[in-house]
Amino acid sequence: MSFTVESAIETLGQAALARQADERFAERLSDVRDLLSDDLQAIERGLDQALESGLSPGRDAAQHLIRLGGKRVRPMALLLSAACFGGISPAARQLALVAELLHSATLLHDDVVDEGMERRGAVTARRLWGNAVSVLGGDFVLVRSLELTSTHAPALMPSLVATLRQLIDGEIRQLRGRTQLDVSETTYQLILRDKTASLFRWSTQTGATLGGAAPEACDRLARFGEHLGMAFQLVDDVLDYSGQQTGKTLLADLAEGKLTLPLVLAVAARPQLAKSLERIHGGDREPVEYVGEQVIQSGVCDVVRQRAREHTNLAVQALQAIPDSPAKRLLVEVAHQLAARVA
Amino acid sequence: MSFTVESAIETLGQAALARQADERFAERLSDVRDLLSDDLQAIERGLDQALESGLSPGRDAAQHLIRLGGKRVRPMALLLSAACFGGISPAARQLALVAELLHSATLLHDDVVDEGMERRGAVTARRLWGNAVSVLGGDFVLVRSLELTSTHAPALMPSLVATLRQLIDGEIRQLRGRTQLDVSETTYQLILRDKTASLFRWSTQTGATLGGAAPEACDRLARFGEHLGMAFQLVDDVLDYSGQQTGKTLLADLAEGKLTLPLVLAVAARPQLAKSLERIHGGDREPVEYVGEQVIQSGVCDVVRQRAREHTNLAVQALQAIPDSPAKRLLVEVAHQLAARVA
Repeated sequence: MSFTVESAIETLGQAALARQADERFAERLSDVRDLLSDDLQAIERGLDQALESGLSPGRDAAQHLIRLGGKRVRPMALLLSAACFGGISPAARQLALVAELLHSATLLHDDVVDEGMERRGAVTARRLWGNAVSVLGGDFVLVRSLELTSTHAPALMPSLVATLRQLIDGEIRQLRGRTQLDVSETTYQLILRDKTASLFRWSTQTGATLGGAAPEACDRLARFGEHLGMAFQLVDDVLDYSGQQTGKTLLADLAEGKLTLPLVLAVAARPQLAKSLERIHGGDREPVEYVGEQVIQSGVCDVVRQRAREHTNLAVQALQAIPDSPAKRLLVEVAHQLAARVA
Repeated sequence: MSFTVESAIETLGQAALARQADERFAERLSDVRDLLSDDLQAIERGLDQALESGLSPGRDAAQHLIRLGGKRVRPMALLLSAACFGGISPAARQLALVAELLHSATLLHDDVVDEGMERRGAVTARRLWGNAVSVLGGDFVLVRSLELTSTHAPALMPSLVATLRQLIDGEIRQLRGRTQLDVSETTYQLILRDKTASLFRWSTQTGATLGGAAPEACDRLARFGEHLGMAFQLVDDVLDYSGQQTGKTLLADLAEGKLTLPLVLAVAARPQLAKSLERIHGGDREPVEYVGEQVIQSGVCDVVRQRAREHTNLAVQALQAIPDSPAKRLLVEVAHQLAARVA
């Protein structure tokens, strides 16, 4: 985990003791502690089990990617959202796996689409086994997430399908951006909302729903998730230029011709970059370093980080009317830590 | 259409007139005639509409493939299966589109997996727009079929998901067969059942279900569909060696290293072919023609055609207890024509 949920729990626990919290608070706290220590391990075991029924080599691609770890932000956000209300049911645990599996499916297809070389500090599945295995591995993981949802929470199939549609629309829009240099910030916002924020939104909304929250509270959690996802992706985009270690090579997005907000803003500020970018889109890696330096020098990374902080604030605001609980405080903590991360 | 459903309808219509059929029979016949003239066109329009909401270039890949035509066997089998019982509801018409869309999604991913060059007599979408567009186009079409099912027949989502799982398992098994020369006939049967027969089975079962058939009758239609699909794929495999015109280049499956029953049987009969096959799997196209000739000379194509006829007979048997109707007769006709096709 790249943010310190465990220490956050500790702090909250001590605060609760200091305040001689009532039984209900202590009860919930133990729920959440349980979630964040044992249950993060349970997620790992659950993911491993979820892949077991798959056939090699499709399963190998999925295992390779998933066993390399990752922040597991989506399943954690789902579980914490459930814990804000009636607690974490067995169905919520399964749907937390779905959130991570869906994300993994998009990554396996993404790597083929972007001809990605590295991910999570290791070579991509498509480089190990080829495009065919990465495509079918992604298909397998997608179908597993449909199977789990259909079995454990059939009523959530329509929202899952709607989210899938957003994910694919976002991917297609992003692909289009590779050959289009005059992308507006509005288009970029649409891409962000569809390809990243949609799954965060689904995760927190699903958690709230399975936790038994009232419709209005589900909407609040959905809004929280959407802004969390926007902030998360904005920071991710910045880290392609200024990250300390992201598991991907620095400037990997740029080299792949992937559209990111720092790039959109930098080209708007320094139009002469368009020519270099065109060369990168044509497959020439030579101008990558130069463009990277220009993006840093243009100062747009600070602008994008500020944009991320705004989304974080909106996320936290969305939770204001939700009753206080350790789980809610942790969601807020997660949001702040994600926005501040440097790797 | 490569089989003559229209003339079959004519024949049945004349027979009905000759027998001075009762009103009920005439009514059903007009249902089916309606289905097979107007409704085949309606399927084309429906497919086109189903893609409208997609974003370019993902949508372009899907339109390219689908507008090239195809036999539309799956939607037709679904509609006829519904017509065997309570008739064709609006939901059945939508689910008929799903059957063809799902099939199209697998083809778009298949072309990336197999590095396919031609399909339906034209260049593949991936050659026109690249692998990325074919992968995302396939994802889009898959999601469209989930959307349509979720909207028009939500109760069928579990069976759709189960079928998706079979499709992907079949694709993965087939991919594994590309680097494995000692594939048994049993393994090949599994591939066939999963990658082709499963969707035929789902189509006829879904048609029967939406037509209001009793569970036992739905099972019979499912069995019909499964055998129809097995026969269809066996003939398809033979046509790679002896087809007159299949829209694909002759020996395309062989050149792609795709596992087919003629090949499995030919290698079993002439073990010396294994060496040439290994070269083909390694990307060498030179031995393709030689292996193709050897397969023809070994006489295995007749064996496979015989196997297809057996499945056709089992398909027809599965319908025996279903009350006679023009739609049922047409299903039988479709089965016989598919087994006998030479292109």
